[in-house]
Amino acid sequence: MEISVSRKAHFNAAHRLHVATWSDEKNKEYFGLCNNPNYHGHNYEVIVTVTGKLDEETGYLVDIKVLSDLIRDEIEHRFDHKNLNLDTIEFKNLNPTAENIAVVIWRLLRPHINKEHKLSIKLFETERNFVEYGGN
Amino acid sequence: MEISVSRKAHFNAAHRLHVATWSDEKNKEYFGLCNNPNYHGHNYEVIVTVTGKLDEETGYLVDIKVLSDLIRDEIEHRFDHKNLNLDTIEFKNLNPTAENIAVVIWRLLRPHINKEHKLSIKLFETERNFVEYGGN
Amino acid sequence: MEISVSRKAHFNAAHRLHVATWSDEKNKEYFGLCNNPNYHGHNYEVIVTVTGKLDEETGYLVDIKVLSDLIRDEIEHRFDHKNLNLDTIEFKNLNPTAENIAVVIWRLLRPHINKEHKLSIKLFETERNFVEYGGN
Amino acid sequence: MEISVSRKAHFNAAHRLHVATWSDEKNKEYFGLCNNPNYHGHNYEVIVTVTGKLDEETGYLVDIKVLSDLIRDEIEHRFDHKNLNLDTIEFKNLNPTAENIAVVIWRLLRPHINKEHKLSIKLFETERNFVEYGGN
Amino acid sequence: MEISVSRKAHFNAAHRLHVATWSDEKNKEYFGLCNNPNYHGHNYEVIVTVTGKLDEETGYLVDIKVLSDLIRDEIEHRFDHKNLNLDTIEFKNLNPTAENIAVVIWRLLRPHINKEHKLSIKLFETERNFVEYGGN
Amino acid sequence: MEISVSRKAHFNAAHRLHVATWSDEKNKEYFGLCNNPNYHGHNYEVIVTVTGKLDEETGYLVDIKVLSDLIRDEIEHRFDHKNLNLDTIEFKNLNPTAENIAVVIWRLLRPHINKEHKLSIKLFETERNFVEYGGN
Repeated sequence: MEISVSRKAHFNAAHRLHVATWSDEKNKEYFGLCNNPNYHGHNYEVIVTVTGKLDEETGYLVDIKVLSDLIRDEIEHRFDHKNLNLDTIEFKNLNPTAENIAVVIWRLLRPHINKEHKLSIKLFETERNFVEYGGN
Repeated sequence: MEISVSRKAHFNAAHRLHVATWSDEKNKEYFGLCNNPNYHGHNYEVIVTVTGKLDEETGYLVDIKVLSDLIRDEIEHRFDHKNLNLDTIEFKNLNPTAENIAVVIWRLLRPHINKEHKLSIKLFETERNFVEYGGN
Repeated sequence: MEISVSRKAHFNAAHRLHVATWSDEKNKEYFGLCNNPNYHGHNYEVIVTVTGKLDEETGYLVDIKVLSDLIRDEIEHRFDHKNLNLDTIEFKNLNPTAENIAVVIWRLLRPHINKEHKLSIKLFETERNFVEYGGN
Repeated sequence: MEISVSRKAHFNAAHRLHVATWSDEKNKEYFGLCNNPNYHGHNYEVIVTVTGKLDEETGYLVDIKVLSDLIRDEIEHRFDHKNLNLDTIEFKNLNPTAENIAVVIWRLLRPHINKEHKLSIKLFETERNFVEYGGN
Repeated sequence: MEISVSRKAHFNAAHRLHVATWSDEKNKEYFGLCNNPNYHGHNYEVIVTVTGKLDEETGYLVDIKVLSDLIRDEIEHRFDHKNLNLDTIEFKNLNPTAENIAVVIWRLLRPHINKEHKLSIKLFETERNFVEYGGN
Repeated sequence: MEISVSRKAHFNAAHRLHVATWSDEKNKEYFGLCNNPNYHGHNYEVIVTVTGKLDEETGYLVDIKVLSDLIRDEIEHRFDHKNLNLDTIEFKNLNPTAENIAVVIWRLLRPHINKEHKLSIKLFETERNFVEYGGN
């Protein structure tokens, strides 16, 4: 039986959208308000979904407490109350769009997830804007 | 890297469920309260999801501002504060069920979306009733 | 000990904003899209709050099942899947603004609530627009 | 045209996580607070999704009223205000993890759903913890 | 300047409604499903609101981190994953209705809140049923 | 008849908590992560509530479209996608705590609201932390 288990977490961070290899004018034109050099910020909500075969002895796919602690240690502690552009290695040279943040979270969690399980990340930048990445 | 980007929008509209080729009795029996000849209405929430390859230069799949403006121009302006049965061409001869509204929205947006991207529509008629259509 | 108990309910209805004693032009200018002669609609959410002294024997202010049944019988059955302007006595000669709907709900429920209890109505026309009326 | 229709329902229940073939110590160590012998509880939210070909005459995949009544009769009446471990046949010998509850709901509903339609169950144990099962 | 600061927390618990001085028949008739001797449960959401004069030097009424830790230590640790009737001193001889739970939480927190501040508790038993108590 | 009308809006901004007259050490100790010199950010949700006598001719207290435009022009345009500490006059010398942001919004809107109406501001910094200010 294949089943998915999801855990929702969140972090609050500042960022600006900016492509380092572009001129300031091109960045401003392309990213608009999101390119503000003084940054703006979001309450990011992240849903981590793990998919695989149910363990019939325990009735668990994964222990959600273990998954929850993993997200706290690898994602919340790393990004919460941070400036993504200035305070993190991951976005020093990578534009912190919602898409890239989802991909980075996937890569940070993937080594800690059972290899036989699929991993998918849904990231809400606002209640109305969100992205999803499943590693393909 | 394949990723999905979603934008949530909404419109408030009146409608009634009615199959033009059926008798009034059959319509009333089949659709119940939803067949009220004087109409009722909903706050429709629509989530538009675009899926495709991430542009590694910008970190965008699509510019969510462009997607948001497209939904405003093609969907919200067309359906908001309207009577779907009386005020729109799309439902003059089509029963405005949640299913059909999702299909119509998909068809209205599809020509404006990059051909290499997949498009999917999730439509909430109420918080507890919703449908999803991906063009297959 | 004074305490409040609240119950949330909902109904889906069509309406148009229109003052019968005004010209069509004045109505259209004042109410804009909300004056559409063919109606539009909403998923109305209503929160009914009763305030009074806690019954120390039962630990109840009111039996929420009784309150819930009352709202179903007096409000949901009356307004759900209706056109407020055409199908209800209450709004035949009263403009169905959110404010007036809240006042009407208050008047419909007040006779059924213990006279020593205060009654208050919160009505959401959309997630972003709501009103509150407490009988003063 | 393949489309999905979803209906959200809920039930409030008590449960404890416990594997009958394990010692009390092993259960306590593995399930922690969730193993409390006196039980704890949740407001479970369940989303039932049916997928199949749209009926072009009616504009329905399924009649959501019929689906809603089915969930009320088969799921809500069975589990609402119950102790899952003590009051239900389904979890007498099955650990009532969120995963197993989703699988049980799927099995209870499957015989009542059109054989040509796919069925999927999403179960929220809390707002932050949820599972999904599609019968594979 | 008088301002209110609120913090939302939650706990998951089992309970049954039962008045010790009543017969089983009277309890069953009065409380219905909520009287199930095997218990049922809820995800309780609690909003703690403190009201008082703004500290103009810090711009804080209270440090929300301190308030959050207080709620965790005094409320969440005490009630989360517990059977309110069996596992807590507070409800050993008190019917755990939503009203009484709100009053108990108010009494547990009041000694830890600045005497010049007002304290109010809003408790959601479900999304649709909630109570509020302000100490009067 | 006295009634309240509320409109919900939002803006996304960066900020840091910092009292200019304190040492860096004292700021860091008091505000913790919120004092990060590189800023963090939030999706702020603001609910503006106006209370007064219902206009019995129109059935409006205020035209919610007018209120909505006022919030867009005075609040959203001023604060959205901004760094509150660096990009705004209002917080150049005022610590941008949730409390102070609510007070500032109240002062910005008050001159535009009918003098006979009461004004109240509810500001969510996160889903779990919020403040309310009514001008007293």
